[in-house]
Amino acid sequence: MSIPKTQKAIVFETNGGPLEYKEIPVPEPNSNELLINIKYSGVCHTDLHAWKGDWPLATKLPLVGGHEGAGVVVAMGKNVKNWKVGDLAGVKWLNGSCMSCEFCQHGDEPNCAQADLSGYTHDGSFQQYATADAVQAAKIPQGTDLAEVAPILCAGITVYKALKTANLSAGQWVCISGAGGGLGSLAIQYANAMGYRVCAIDGGEEKKAFCQSLGAEKFIDFTISKDIVKDVVEATNGGPHGAINVSVSERAISQSVEFIRATGTVVLVGLPAGAKVVAPVFDAVVKSVSIRGSYVGNRADSAEAIDFFSRGLIKCPIKIVGLSELPEIYTLMEEGKILGRYVVDTTK
Amino acid sequence: MSIPKTQKAIVFETNGGPLEYKEIPVPEPNSNELLINIKYSGVCHTDLHAWKGDWPLATKLPLVGGHEGAGVVVAMGKNVKNWKVGDLAGVKWLNGSCMSCEFCQHGDEPNCAQADLSGYTHDGSFQQYATADAVQAAKIPQGTDLAEVAPILCAGITVYKALKTANLSAGQWVCISGAGGGLGSLAIQYANAMGYRVCAIDGGEEKKAFCQSLGAEKFIDFTISKDIVKDVVEATNGGPHGAINVSVSERAISQSVEFIRATGTVVLVGLPAGAKVVAPVFDAVVKSVSIRGSYVGNRADSAEAIDFFSRGLIKCPIKIVGLSELPEIYTLMEEGKILGRYVVDTTK
Amino acid sequence: MSIPKTQKAIVFETNGGPLEYKEIPVPEPNSNELLINIKYSGVCHTDLHAWKGDWPLATKLPLVGGHEGAGVVVAMGKNVKNWKVGDLAGVKWLNGSCMSCEFCQHGDEPNCAQADLSGYTHDGSFQQYATADAVQAAKIPQGTDLAEVAPILCAGITVYKALKTANLSAGQWVCISGAGGGLGSLAIQYANAMGYRVCAIDGGEEKKAFCQSLGAEKFIDFTISKDIVKDVVEATNGGPHGAINVSVSERAISQSVEFIRATGTVVLVGLPAGAKVVAPVFDAVVKSVSIRGSYVGNRADSAEAIDFFSRGLIKCPIKIVGLSELPEIYTLMEEGKILGRYVVDTTK
Amino acid sequence: MSIPKTQKAIVFETNGGPLEYKEIPVPEPNSNELLINIKYSGVCHTDLHAWKGDWPLATKLPLVGGHEGAGVVVAMGKNVKNWKVGDLAGVKWLNGSCMSCEFCQHGDEPNCAQADLSGYTHDGSFQQYATADAVQAAKIPQGTDLAEVAPILCAGITVYKALKTANLSAGQWVCISGAGGGLGSLAIQYANAMGYRVCAIDGGEEKKAFCQSLGAEKFIDFTISKDIVKDVVEATNGGPHGAINVSVSERAISQSVEFIRATGTVVLVGLPAGAKVVAPVFDAVVKSVSIRGSYVGNRADSAEAIDFFSRGLIKCPIKIVGLSELPEIYTLMEEGKILGRYVVDTTK
Repeated sequence: MSIPKTQKAIVFETNGGPLEYKEIPVPEPNSNELLINIKYSGVCHTDLHAWKGDWPLATKLPLVGGHEGAGVVVAMGKNVKNWKVGDLAGVKWLNGSCMSCEFCQHGDEPNCAQADLSGYTHDGSFQQYATADAVQAAKIPQGTDLAEVAPILCAGITVYKALKTANLSAGQWVCISGAGGGLGSLAIQYANAMGYRVCAIDGGEEKKAFCQSLGAEKFIDFTISKDIVKDVVEATNGGPHGAINVSVSERAISQSVEFIRATGTVVLVGLPAGAKVVAPVFDAVVKSVSIRGSYVGNRADSAEAIDFFSRGLIKCPIKIVGLSELPEIYTLMEEGKILGRYVVDTTK
Repeated sequence: MSIPKTQKAIVFETNGGPLEYKEIPVPEPNSNELLINIKYSGVCHTDLHAWKGDWPLATKLPLVGGHEGAGVVVAMGKNVKNWKVGDLAGVKWLNGSCMSCEFCQHGDEPNCAQADLSGYTHDGSFQQYATADAVQAAKIPQGTDLAEVAPILCAGITVYKALKTANLSAGQWVCISGAGGGLGSLAIQYANAMGYRVCAIDGGEEKKAFCQSLGAEKFIDFTISKDIVKDVVEATNGGPHGAINVSVSERAISQSVEFIRATGTVVLVGLPAGAKVVAPVFDAVVKSVSIRGSYVGNRADSAEAIDFFSRGLIKCPIKIVGLSELPEIYTLMEEGKILGRYVVDTTK
Repeated sequence: MSIPKTQKAIVFETNGGPLEYKEIPVPEPNSNELLINIKYSGVCHTDLHAWKGDWPLATKLPLVGGHEGAGVVVAMGKNVKNWKVGDLAGVKWLNGSCMSCEFCQHGDEPNCAQADLSGYTHDGSFQQYATADAVQAAKIPQGTDLAEVAPILCAGITVYKALKTANLSAGQWVCISGAGGGLGSLAIQYANAMGYRVCAIDGGEEKKAFCQSLGAEKFIDFTISKDIVKDVVEATNGGPHGAINVSVSERAISQSVEFIRATGTVVLVGLPAGAKVVAPVFDAVVKSVSIRGSYVGNRADSAEAIDFFSRGLIKCPIKIVGLSELPEIYTLMEEGKILGRYVVDTTK
Repeated sequence: MSIPKTQKAIVFETNGGPLEYKEIPVPEPNSNELLINIKYSGVCHTDLHAWKGDWPLATKLPLVGGHEGAGVVVAMGKNVKNWKVGDLAGVKWLNGSCMSCEFCQHGDEPNCAQADLSGYTHDGSFQQYATADAVQAAKIPQGTDLAEVAPILCAGITVYKALKTANLSAGQWVCISGAGGGLGSLAIQYANAMGYRVCAIDGGEEKKAFCQSLGAEKFIDFTISKDIVKDVVEATNGGPHGAINVSVSERAISQSVEFIRATGTVVLVGLPAGAKVVAPVFDAVVKSVSIRGSYVGNRADSAEAIDFFSRGLIKCPIKIVGLSELPEIYTLMEEGKILGRYVVDTTK
């Protein structure tokens, strides 16, 4: 396989500066890295934050963003094990970690203080050839559709990890707020694949039909319900055992602490700037409730989330555009006009 | 063993009404109940709430309070198994539950909707002879000091359960706020018996010496510290893996969410009216923190907490007064003048 | 609802003695018991052992056997909670336990030294009216087919518990030997409902088609395979994470220790007299394998197993005969000629 | 720090061939490796197997043995994170693994098919300068005695892992057979540090006094006991919740399956060639017993085992000899004449 010297990428020199579609050198993999020919990359709201630089953590500059990249291994460093040229590989948010701190030792690599983040502190997947730590890079089974798997590499892993964090058993109820959205619709499908019963919360007949088509057993329409807490408790015969807040409004969090079944778990997933969990201590104690933050998946979570997808249990509708059109997608995201999941084709 | 027809008890007819020390009939045990000759009973703040009736849940009236009673089995109903006359037995907060709902099936009897509460919905231990559900009554090993074990039956079980809820491994750090108080001093000792390393938070040299004498490895004096979060993180080499908030001030809870180690667990124990947990979502998610309410122990927790005490690993300094003096203890509690744990001798 | 004084039952006076279909008094429920009008009862090999008396544990005599009874509550003792006349209820193997020993405290009631066993130490479900401990009796949702649910009360709960004992996550592989039989076919379906991938072992094209129709993803035919261990390892891409030995031949157990994936769990379920687990220590250690015995379910396991059935996820083909025909079923069982699951109708 | 070009080591060219004490080149660390100046190394029976080559797995040849090395980091490859020159570091049995297979992803690195083993497939600690994978190398806190910590790096980690595999709670009983030996004496101390109650099995008054001095609460003398199973059950009030078989005789394993408490766990640790677990299926099922193989610790287990040692909770008596004397130690081991733990000083 011949690897070119240069490639196309979307690059910005300063946070909030121009997003340039241009020719840059193909990077060389370090001894522990893969060089992946990225075919497709999903676009995530986090990419917008990275570009704008409005999070507390500084980005690398200049930066190639993107952390949902799916492609083919074309080269690798000399210490790399378990990979070969031609394997399908994914670039995900966590590009690498120290592997030797207390968190890495316990499989909590995303919590490593030295975590290296794709499209943030490490050039990401909005380019044709990206380097990735061989230990953290995601293995993608041969035969998997690379465009459709792309959003699984961040969105899919994230909701799967959140569901694992809820610590449920097959047959128990999980309530998903914002169930008709991008993360929510993946969450419904993963929950079903894990044997959970799903109570979806969203608004409108179209969302209802969509959630039910994905496997939601109950649907609470917040545009109709006069008492969401009461309706969820009734629909789930006493409250769900777990609740996944992909929407992460403060109100949704407070409601989920109210409707959760005693001894149940409320999971926080998103990263809204400045939002707070507010919950009554008395209720939390008497009901023995857990409120748990869930960040992103580790290596095992990632492999498992991809495996469910590759087995055909998870569907993720996408819109494919060219990499060169990425700036327009950012504009749509900023204007809040985006619908569904965009995936860029790096050849265009 | 001859059982008298009448006995001494402290009774009130209305919430907040007179606490009368008087002669009442000895109750008859139901087919599933023990009749326990209470020798000693601890006095807890919850008893004050029961008397005043200021919690959302209504008490039985007239009521004999008390839920930390230690005594001897003198009779039992015909369905009782595993007990015999002469066994030592304890009356604890959870007197009984349905044993067949989802919570009871999973060993979460305290969360049963039909939970029966000693000294609240069932006449308690401020009398010489009390009935108790044989399944929930606590077995006390022969040879145990009945006066000293009394506070273990509520305070001890509660902190032990909170420590279990923190889900720690031996060798990990737990931070206990209010460590020099009644619950806190028990928590230090249980934590040590479980192999945890203790960082205590309290104020003053006397509390420091006390906490250290009980096994606290580190002590943060809130009257001296200029930055409690920073000091706790340093003392525990990165933040404790668990935090037990026996004090339950909103500020202490917020601080503990800040100083907790990533992936750690903050446990809420007390039941302050109206207090709220307030925590930033961003931090909770990125640090993957758990905030968990812990109520009271189940049968297994109770047996284990008593076992640690009976093996001599837990010391609980008490002051013994006569049952007839109970009204004065209530007055002290109301005035916030109480120091240490009071235990009443039912013969006086 | 009027309760007759006498009823029809199958009774034997001595182990191995005549199985008499006759009129006996309707029992009175104790204060903690339900009186259940048994409509249908499954027939299990254990019933044969109880009759013959060939197990180390002595049976009650005279005895009414049966421990898979489904019916309607017609009366109950005064201490019973959470039940009402008209509820559907199930008689299962574990009729009652002390609820206060260490095992009961931890939800391991089947391991209680005072376990009371239906159709063994307590008159069982081969009669029209049976008493059952209200805490252990199984709640059956309204609308459930009482004939079809009967075998779930022992066979279903047993395989479900075995699957839980394998401690798997959704998406992992479980291998079921004897998958085409009564227990095995239930195990395939429960495994699917829990999100596991199933590799079935049995013999012949008919069994293969049957197992696949129930959801087995892979099938190893022991009549064709030249190396079962190798074939299972290949089919499951490295060995299954769990193995359920419902057949419990010594050879099947040894093979499962060989083909199990490193860190996996081999579960033993059946109770063959005299059989032994034989496994190489070296392999067990280097592969970090667990070999675990699984007995019968506790209250929670039972409720969950029934819930999966009531939701329509488990099918159990049965043959219905009259209670009076039970002796002939015993004869068929003794001759090893039984095929499928027999259920007796107590009205005939 | 100046690093010499050559160093002293014990090398053998063929399995069972001469053990030569000679000058060899100092190795160069790979990009992911540390170069450790080994000060002391423990000597383990596994080293004898490596030399003789009598295990199924082939060794590297020529080979420098040793896998309990403690020393100081003197150089490191360019990809190494979290280490600096001057840090104390340990060489342990597991030198490295792929970090990306299913086992490594779940923290089961010892089960990795590509596991690289110190003193077996990678030159070990019987030399003055050894290379070690930076991710697997053990961090040793400053101030730790390097001679005394050496045996912890294999023996200590192994028994600690075995205790974790028993899955006990503080306050539960663990029975350790061969408790007075090298592994056993460490197991007693770790068990105590974890809050477990220890019942030790060994022979003779001297062993009894030794075990009790280390914290064993009960001692069963197999030279006196007429019924070990009965005596262990009595000593532990119903059987221990866990049993650690460091001796791994078939008889000891069978006995431990008999005396283990229902629902308890029997752990197999050692690697005797050809030994088998033999246990009755009926008992295993009715008692719901687990039999689990425990191999060696992962990164977290290793760090924790060392942490207990560094905190002064574990004592390991050693005899120090020069590296050049190693061949004589092998002779003693072969003759079964070794007593206690030998540690070699690499400067002599």
